[in-house]
Amino acid sequence: MGIRVKLQRDRHTALYRHIAEEFRTRIARGELPPGTRLPTVRALAREVGTTRLTIHNAYRELQADGLIESVVGRGTFVSPQARPAAQPSLGERLEPDLVLSDLHRLQHARALHNLALATADPALFPYEAFWACLEGLKPLAREVFGYGSVMGEPELRVALSELLEQRGIEADPQEVLVTVGGLQGLALVCRALAEPGEEVLLEEPTYLGLLGILKQFRLKPLPVPLDAEGPRLEVLEALLKRHRPRFYYTIPSYHNPTGLRFCQERLRRLLALAQAHGFTLVEDDTLGCLSYEKTPPTPLYALAQRLGAGSQVVHLASLSKVLMPGLRIGYLLAPEALLERFTALHNVSDITGPPPLLQRAAAQFIRQGSLKQHLKQVLPIYQRRRDALLQALSRHMPAGVHWSRPEGGFSCWVSLPRLFSTLELHRQALARGVAITPGEAFLVRSDEAMHFRLCFGAEGAEGLEEGVKELARLIRARQKV
Amino acid sequence: MGIRVKLQRDRHTALYRHIAEEFRTRIARGELPPGTRLPTVRALAREVGTTRLTIHNAYRELQADGLIESVVGRGTFVSPQARPAAQPSLGERLEPDLVLSDLHRLQHARALHNLALATADPALFPYEAFWACLEGLKPLAREVFGYGSVMGEPELRVALSELLEQRGIEADPQEVLVTVGGLQGLALVCRALAEPGEEVLLEEPTYLGLLGILKQFRLKPLPVPLDAEGPRLEVLEALLKRHRPRFYYTIPSYHNPTGLRFCQERLRRLLALAQAHGFTLVEDDTLGCLSYEKTPPTPLYALAQRLGAGSQVVHLASLSKVLMPGLRIGYLLAPEALLERFTALHNVSDITGPPPLLQRAAAQFIRQGSLKQHLKQVLPIYQRRRDALLQALSRHMPAGVHWSRPEGGFSCWVSLPRLFSTLELHRQALARGVAITPGEAFLVRSDEAMHFRLCFGAEGAEGLEEGVKELARLIRARQKV
Repeated sequence: MGIRVKLQRDRHTALYRHIAEEFRTRIARGELPPGTRLPTVRALAREVGTTRLTIHNAYRELQADGLIESVVGRGTFVSPQARPAAQPSLGERLEPDLVLSDLHRLQHARALHNLALATADPALFPYEAFWACLEGLKPLAREVFGYGSVMGEPELRVALSELLEQRGIEADPQEVLVTVGGLQGLALVCRALAEPGEEVLLEEPTYLGLLGILKQFRLKPLPVPLDAEGPRLEVLEALLKRHRPRFYYTIPSYHNPTGLRFCQERLRRLLALAQAHGFTLVEDDTLGCLSYEKTPPTPLYALAQRLGAGSQVVHLASLSKVLMPGLRIGYLLAPEALLERFTALHNVSDITGPPPLLQRAAAQFIRQGSLKQHLKQVLPIYQRRRDALLQALSRHMPAGVHWSRPEGGFSCWVSLPRLFSTLELHRQALARGVAITPGEAFLVRSDEAMHFRLCFGAEGAEGLEEGVKELARLIRARQKV
Repeated sequence: MGIRVKLQRDRHTALYRHIAEEFRTRIARGELPPGTRLPTVRALAREVGTTRLTIHNAYRELQADGLIESVVGRGTFVSPQARPAAQPSLGERLEPDLVLSDLHRLQHARALHNLALATADPALFPYEAFWACLEGLKPLAREVFGYGSVMGEPELRVALSELLEQRGIEADPQEVLVTVGGLQGLALVCRALAEPGEEVLLEEPTYLGLLGILKQFRLKPLPVPLDAEGPRLEVLEALLKRHRPRFYYTIPSYHNPTGLRFCQERLRRLLALAQAHGFTLVEDDTLGCLSYEKTPPTPLYALAQRLGAGSQVVHLASLSKVLMPGLRIGYLLAPEALLERFTALHNVSDITGPPPLLQRAAAQFIRQGSLKQHLKQVLPIYQRRRDALLQALSRHMPAGVHWSRPEGGFSCWVSLPRLFSTLELHRQALARGVAITPGEAFLVRSDEAMHFRLCFGAEGAEGLEEGVKELARLIRARQKV
């Protein structure tokens, strides 16, 4: 077999990863179906012009991913179980948890225009500055490789309380609990606030990670639709007449997936409803700092504090979108009684949260002002990408297609007239090298209209333009049928 | 107030941490009761002979821990809520989850002889070699700060499968799931294998982390007592007549807290019972590599594979005890059908496990042979500490006191005739600067006899000798009453 490995080496990626990637992409495209025999290590090393160790490492990586397998005395083959890596499981109904893990797998398929993942661009990560913070900890190695503190490293909790202050929130370091990424914090809160079988309010569409958690813990979602100003409270009020939900999960600052910013008046009324009906508001502020506006939105938590209703709100956030997801650092802020419950639950299965080394480096990074500086550098870039995406949509999309105009965050919500299934567009787009997130992943019930999410964080203007053009072509082709 | 800060600076710990520690210890001892005014930053900096920034940082750390608070215009005070940090909550019954978090808090109180925590000695951590592995990843920064792979980094899964091979287990990298520490893996397995209200078998005493998880998930423990060779299977058989447990949690290789190594014949019969009654065996092998014997024990998983019963066993392990806990790297190996269930559950609340940076560094560390070399260096040291502990026990303990003779791991189980409550000895010992783990933390039911665990991993021979001497003095004093 002639494998042509593109040697577009960038200095950040090891050659063996490139080679593994090439195979992964070909397996995903169906070019190398299950059972295909791969070249021997020796033959491929000669062909690519590298060492056998490099090929060996590439094969090991593919083997670890379950894509290939060695049969003693016979050679190396594409696994019978090798599912195309870039394809989500094509069941009847798209499972939010599968979408999430499939999307993360997608990330590694670099051949794609990836408009599917609401993530920051790795090319813009502040490696140098962060690495310097890591290196500064070398003399403290004994501490940072030990168990660390139960609620998170004190230094980080101090830094995070300062970060929260910048969001208009008065937070004591003692009120901050560090979690393993934002998702673990969300799972913790869901488990602590509701029992299996109980009901939970959420916006529709909502963060797909939440839907996976609810399913896992058997919590029943009560969806509240959105309009341009936020959740439609008349629907919420009607629901509250017949239900006793435990909490309301909300993303008021650059809602995911729509990119909406909820208006203050709506939030004030939401807060009043929560107080009157005795349910907790769980605010997800993961994207609140990623603002392309002159005045970033005031978090619900800050509003509640000002109105003396701070005990009604839990505030969730993370460094994954504003800094780097590989730190696995999330955090939450909660009134004392709830925080105790969260901490007790957290201690049982995690002891100390993310590695102290990374917590301490992040603390230093924030406290020396590097996060502020980083955001100052990247926000204009993301804003330009947002603009490029919106322009491409205006330029290419046929009439009848609508989309949101995000003022922050990484995502844009596109709605089509009913034409063909979400899954079908998703699949066709993938086959043409464009990844989107199908709208069903964000919805409790399937919807008459058709939606999908486009993310502009990790693609440059050119990729966005090409991706949108391709999507528009697929939609037009369908319209003609 | 004259605060005398001991300037025993070791180069691994920042001065401000020493200062914070000094305050923490004094608050814990009750020397600085709630409401005590602390010196101003300026005054203390002058007294200690350091910068104001250092004192500021120490105060911030104490503030983050909730031990002190500043009142604008008045000064800094010990918090009204400042619970003595080194004291577990002294309820009627010792809650395992509280013990665990209290013990971890204890770790930071360096004034103590810490015989309470079954951890490796931070002074023996292989910093230099590990840091070199970290630095080797700097050119790959873009990858290692991104989201990483869903089941763990392929490199690490390959390295772990090699590690498992050394334990006599045939493991494909695809069968390995990386978790956030061993505890998260255990929580995952418990949740996946049993529903709230269902029954679970375990050894008594058992790992205290398990008891916390069972309580949290409302699983009912069915304890099986131990003798010198392992679990008493006639008790297990009797239980199986009346119950249908979902799984059996076992620690066959250097059982925690007793240090026992279960004999092969017992394991073989256990496996047969699991097959006959259709329950899964969950093997915790966290300490299996920490062997002071010529031949380390064969894991249950390896035995099952040889007997064609591999689908009956889940194997849990971690790098926390054999390498460093601050990596937060655990892993598990399971038959395909179960692994799928674990992975689905894992993805919902964690996406990618521990930070890719540390996963990749650990992979490199293992694959270049540094872990093997590290164990070769430290095992003789831990063995000498074990010997020192056993000698001290023989030398000082009065008649009627019995203890186990661990051939691996970090802990020794001491039994006294009924004299006074576990909590009382625990409290008295703490007051004299010796930390032990009270036996109740490992037991489902309170016991007639009195037990406690002594750990020798993190204390030198001298500390062990002094600690045991003090404990013996307390026991003798009580016997005379």
